[in-house]
Amino acid sequence: MDNQLKKYRQIIVQLLQKYADMPSISDPNSELEEQLILDTERDHYQILTIGWEKSHRVYYPILHIDIKKYKIWVQEDATDFNFVEQLESLGVPKSDIVLAFHPPYKRPDTNYATA
Amino acid sequence: MDNQLKKYRQIIVQLLQKYADMPSISDPNSELEEQLILDTERDHYQILTIGWEKSHRVYYPILHIDIKKYKIWVQEDATDFNFVEQLESLGVPKSDIVLAFHPPYKRPDTNYATA
Repeated sequence: MDNQLKKYRQIIVQLLQKYADMPSISDPNSELEEQLILDTERDHYQILTIGWEKSHRVYYPILHIDIKKYKIWVQEDATDFNFVEQLESLGVPKSDIVLAFHPPYKRPDTNYATA
Repeated sequence: MDNQLKKYRQIIVQLLQKYADMPSISDPNSELEEQLILDTERDHYQILTIGWEKSHRVYYPILHIDIKKYKIWVQEDATDFNFVEQLESLGVPKSDIVLAFHPPYKRPDTNYATA
């Protein structure tokens, strides 16, 4: 199991770093910042847009992935690549993926893990 | 400078861990999760409430602290202890603290660093 956990961590970090390295499509004059946040000890992985647009506060998760009990929880995915599809193409089975952006009562209707 | 950076990291991690260890005042039947997220490599530090209240999505930063160029950026503080006050009581001078929860144009009106 520990090898699988290690593999899942590597896959998530690799995908998030790839996305964070892409040239941003946001306004170059924008004061918004895109933060890559990787906590490999507690298994929380994020890309966050944060800052100010004039007097408007922006705090927006682009991606938020957790690992809980050997399963990958996709909490948020606002990217233009389908994160779940990427996971599956790298060999992660549906039974190890939780679509946490759906409320718990909706998850049994998906082909993925419910928790 | 590197000793100072190390000291600031320690202070932030210590304060966030202390807060995360407090008994939660939230409903024990709630499905909400409080996540402690520490990225000491990229210097992003968070406590986040995440989950579902029935069909309502909750994604709420309780604390978000960054270190940028040897200064501590307080991005969010929704705790019931004043994080900035805690920093100052541990010896961090106002000139090393950015109140990033204020928009940039308002920061010169504070006694803290503007960036």
